[in-house]
Amino acid sequence: MNQDQLKQQVGNKAVDLIHDQMIVGLGTGSTVKYLVEALGEKIKHENLTITGVVTSKATAALAQKCGISLKTVDQVDHIDLTIDGADEISSDYQGIKGGGAALLFEKIVATNSQKNIWIVDQSKLVDKLGKFPLPVEVIPYGSQKIFERFVKEDYQPTFRLTSTGQKKKTDSGNYIIDLHLQQIKHPHQLALKLKRQVGVVEQGLFLDLVNMIIVGTVDGPKIIQAR
Amino acid sequence: MNQDQLKQQVGNKAVDLIHDQMIVGLGTGSTVKYLVEALGEKIKHENLTITGVVTSKATAALAQKCGISLKTVDQVDHIDLTIDGADEISSDYQGIKGGGAALLFEKIVATNSQKNIWIVDQSKLVDKLGKFPLPVEVIPYGSQKIFERFVKEDYQPTFRLTSTGQKKKTDSGNYIIDLHLQQIKHPHQLALKLKRQVGVVEQGLFLDLVNMIIVGTVDGPKIIQAR
Repeated sequence: MNQDQLKQQVGNKAVDLIHDQMIVGLGTGSTVKYLVEALGEKIKHENLTITGVVTSKATAALAQKCGISLKTVDQVDHIDLTIDGADEISSDYQGIKGGGAALLFEKIVATNSQKNIWIVDQSKLVDKLGKFPLPVEVIPYGSQKIFERFVKEDYQPTFRLTSTGQKKKTDSGNYIIDLHLQQIKHPHQLALKLKRQVGVVEQGLFLDLVNMIIVGTVDGPKIIQAR
Repeated sequence: MNQDQLKQQVGNKAVDLIHDQMIVGLGTGSTVKYLVEALGEKIKHENLTITGVVTSKATAALAQKCGISLKTVDQVDHIDLTIDGADEISSDYQGIKGGGAALLFEKIVATNSQKNIWIVDQSKLVDKLGKFPLPVEVIPYGSQKIFERFVKEDYQPTFRLTSTGQKKKTDSGNYIIDLHLQQIKHPHQLALKLKRQVGVVEQGLFLDLVNMIIVGTVDGPKIIQAR
């Protein structure tokens, strides 16, 4: 099985957790794409009433194409569960997200959800976090100054660029600085240190958030109860 | 003397601190307006080379009209001093800013400045902070959820509105929620509690930042060395 097939496997599996009348947060990324497509099919075949809450313009466009009714996080009184991908998950079930540059809205939806489920292929499971670059969403004004401070801290920062070499803008019009840390020893400490800086909007450590992880393996989807 | 005359008094006084070749952060608001106008005159009459670093689109427009050369915070390698107003200053020289909705860029410039000077009329000096509503800049997506949490915390929140009753957008496209706290007992604790929330971009407590305060009084400008 190749990586795409593993992603499809967990996308399909996660759909089983979505039942009629649910309000469901829909993450962003290549694994969630399979979930959204499978959910669209399920809604059609079983004639379900499902409300999706999106985490990016990209997922909103896809979900609409798949016939899923959408509301914003501010238009719903609760979110039953949110299903999203992850870029790296440690052995104690902390995560890095933001490879798709949607970490801010993903975290807004996740922190407003009763339950969070991550769907990943097995390559995302690691011992400790940090091989995957940690994204930090920053206000463009002053971002060069933040970048210079990150250099001094030896965080090995790089601005996220578009395919044409421009600084990538998030759905909120901010920039992403990726930190190449190799290993994050104290994720809670780092998360707070980054977030409290003036000009930092959010960072990609998703701590103490995920409840269940569905991992795609060659032997079929494996379910981990995280917390 | 009325309040406008006191504002003009300190605006004029602050200009004395700006010398040739300086890079100067220019704040935002009705008191800074007098500073910018006086600085434009001084540059013209004394033929000075001054670089202004602005904190809002409004101040940028005014400074350009007054013939002040401008750079962004990212285009300068340092800022010699920043002169800004304040909405409330406590007896231990902590401040609330953001009545003009420019708190985010003001704080970005202030934290990148070697020295910070606040210019205020005497009505801004208080014993403890909190009578002035504390502004919190938030990402629009999820802002209703933050608002509801602020209600539960009994922060008496209100969305900042435009004159036509729409939610006001900051220069970064965010919303402002004003907290009507009456008295802030532990400003450092509150500042951190607010900033670490997902969706909060910045908040209006400016702590341990100001070096000198110039206060307009009927007896002339009074200078306070804060730290």
